[in-house]
Amino acid sequence: MLTLDKIYHAAFTLKDVVRKTDLIEAPKLREDSQIYLKTENLQVTGSFKVRGAYYKISQLSDEEKRRGVIACSAGNHAQGVALAAAKNGIPSLICLPDGAPISKVEATKNYGAEICLVEGVYDDAYQKALELKEEKGYTFIHPFDDENVIAGQGTIGLELLEQLPDVDAVIVPVGGGGLISGVAYAIKMLNPNVKVYGVQAGGAPSMQQSLAHGQIETLDGVSTIADGIAVKEPGEHTFDLCRKYVDEIVTVTDDEISTAILMLIEQQKLIAEGAGAVSVAAALFDKVPVRGKKVICLVSGGNIDVTILSRVIKRGLLKSGRSYAVTIELIDKPGQLKGVSKILADLGGNVVSIHHERASESSDINGCYLRIVMETRNYEHIEQIRKALTEAGYHIE
Amino acid sequence: MLTLDKIYHAAFTLKDVVRKTDLIEAPKLREDSQIYLKTENLQVTGSFKVRGAYYKISQLSDEEKRRGVIACSAGNHAQGVALAAAKNGIPSLICLPDGAPISKVEATKNYGAEICLVEGVYDDAYQKALELKEEKGYTFIHPFDDENVIAGQGTIGLELLEQLPDVDAVIVPVGGGGLISGVAYAIKMLNPNVKVYGVQAGGAPSMQQSLAHGQIETLDGVSTIADGIAVKEPGEHTFDLCRKYVDEIVTVTDDEISTAILMLIEQQKLIAEGAGAVSVAAALFDKVPVRGKKVICLVSGGNIDVTILSRVIKRGLLKSGRSYAVTIELIDKPGQLKGVSKILADLGGNVVSIHHERASESSDINGCYLRIVMETRNYEHIEQIRKALTEAGYHIE
Repeated sequence: MLTLDKIYHAAFTLKDVVRKTDLIEAPKLREDSQIYLKTENLQVTGSFKVRGAYYKISQLSDEEKRRGVIACSAGNHAQGVALAAAKNGIPSLICLPDGAPISKVEATKNYGAEICLVEGVYDDAYQKALELKEEKGYTFIHPFDDENVIAGQGTIGLELLEQLPDVDAVIVPVGGGGLISGVAYAIKMLNPNVKVYGVQAGGAPSMQQSLAHGQIETLDGVSTIADGIAVKEPGEHTFDLCRKYVDEIVTVTDDEISTAILMLIEQQKLIAEGAGAVSVAAALFDKVPVRGKKVICLVSGGNIDVTILSRVIKRGLLKSGRSYAVTIELIDKPGQLKGVSKILADLGGNVVSIHHERASESSDINGCYLRIVMETRNYEHIEQIRKALTEAGYHIE
Repeated sequence: MLTLDKIYHAAFTLKDVVRKTDLIEAPKLREDSQIYLKTENLQVTGSFKVRGAYYKISQLSDEEKRRGVIACSAGNHAQGVALAAAKNGIPSLICLPDGAPISKVEATKNYGAEICLVEGVYDDAYQKALELKEEKGYTFIHPFDDENVIAGQGTIGLELLEQLPDVDAVIVPVGGGGLISGVAYAIKMLNPNVKVYGVQAGGAPSMQQSLAHGQIETLDGVSTIADGIAVKEPGEHTFDLCRKYVDEIVTVTDDEISTAILMLIEQQKLIAEGAGAVSVAAALFDKVPVRGKKVICLVSGGNIDVTILSRVIKRGLLKSGRSYAVTIELIDKPGQLKGVSKILADLGGNVVSIHHERASESSDINGCYLRIVMETRNYEHIEQIRKALTEAGYHIE
């Protein structure tokens, strides 16, 4: 059974291994409430997962330690287990599906784990891990449904109450539920007045749905940019703890998550992964009551693929009017491009790419299309450019 | 005259206003040394500038405070002065050139400053600020060449020695020299064994050049992505202090700065602006001796324009083999695009854009060009794709 005692013991065990990550006030995220960020994205390995993994491994018997541990993950849990095993001086084997991003495989390897790439998807890697566990006698480290893992994550709850004793509410990302189970338990045991809200991705609401129906349910599929919390089914321990100690679980959309990631970059200079940013998204988009309150958003991790990050930023620039793509129909005669270029130059639209094409089916036989992508300052600036082009007689699609 | 006493006084004055930013170990930046990051990018206003501005303003007479302060800046100094004035309860007026990024103007306004947009460039805004100072009796807050401003920045030096008492070397970004003057003075007074290195952008080496020639020199022009340290001329106080207390000043290229920004994002989950990342670039690219040492890189700020950030990331993806742009010459007959598509799909190249064009001058009358941009995993992956395309008979440019 999970006890406060166990969480305090975990905190003691972890104190020279993990960082007591900073709690940072974020006044620009909302003017009508005091938002604080618990920056577990700045934790070693870039996520909170190392806390649970380390505590779990530290509590194994000498015999179990000698045999080593095994885990199945393509993400933060893999890196957490790899580092935790290395710090405990024992071997670890991580099974990953062979399509896992190279960068994550490399990071896990660099923490000292042996890697087993399994053909197929996550479930295939999971099966392989169970086989190897039987065959070689490794201890399997579950990513969330384990009381020692949960106790390790619960140490964040202790830190939060120490860092901001008069906090009103804590908002926590939820995948399998290990993080929120530990945090909610620690907080409710010490101060039941503090609200604990969970946030899932709209495309993977397994815990929310299971709690609503009063039983563990398995989703057919999951789809979200927050891959770290794309979990089909809650655990038994975590389901039970969430039922008892979590006030409410809400969901956010991928669009809201993207906005939160971009806000964290622009306003707080922090990189969060999708799963790490859902707590901020919930606060930004009024998914839980935050107005007039002191609220901590737990930013659980920062291991976002740079390719995805690049897309989020590009989309953010478009949405905020700092990038503008326009298609202009031109008569195909000399001087037309020059006319357009002059308008853009005069108004300070910074051209990123131009694509000029003749003889499209839908246009005049002498017509052509000019597709321009440019950097702009904001929506007003875009409107200025549109107006100038239209007034000069250009036809904008 | 700058004294240790003044820096301690500044620290006392600042203690409820600025954050004592975290010192974070960054083991992945270099394996052969212990690199730590002083995260002033996580300071309020996103840069260290608020320290000097606040201390300077706090030391004004009641009469001076009543009249208010004026500053000229399009960047971090503007936000620092605006917030510092607001916290001191006095009015501030910030002159900016009218081409300043909207986001920075808005941020400065939001901290409570009055904004004066001046037609022209920085020098015009500066002239206007001096005129207004005379006319209205405002106190001009210099961005670096002022002893109280320098004392405020020096508080970082005290924090560094407290956070890592056995540090061997500190690497500090240098523009006008205010930051490094304060930090170097504080450190050398308390522990002269600690090395203090300065870093300038290769395109703006004003302090380096002035020190080399033993006199203050003015550069004709500056050109660097690190706009925060693009300063043409050091100050008198700062030149003097750097000459006495800084061990060496080195330079880094824009390319090295971009790499450092990307490393900080990927490995440390931190957003740094160009000026903030030069210290890390110097450590990464062996500009100063760091091997086997405990070294602090001062990450001075994080206020990077998202458009520039987007370019840095895009370039980083190309350089690290995670993005690949290829032009293929095709015979213009049906089925060719399908053949290429199949190869890319089989090998997992994720297509971002395709541009297909007929009848270019240089190609066969039946020829056409296919330009494809795709996401790839690494250089090996790109090589696989190139090989498969070549073996299938496609001609790659």
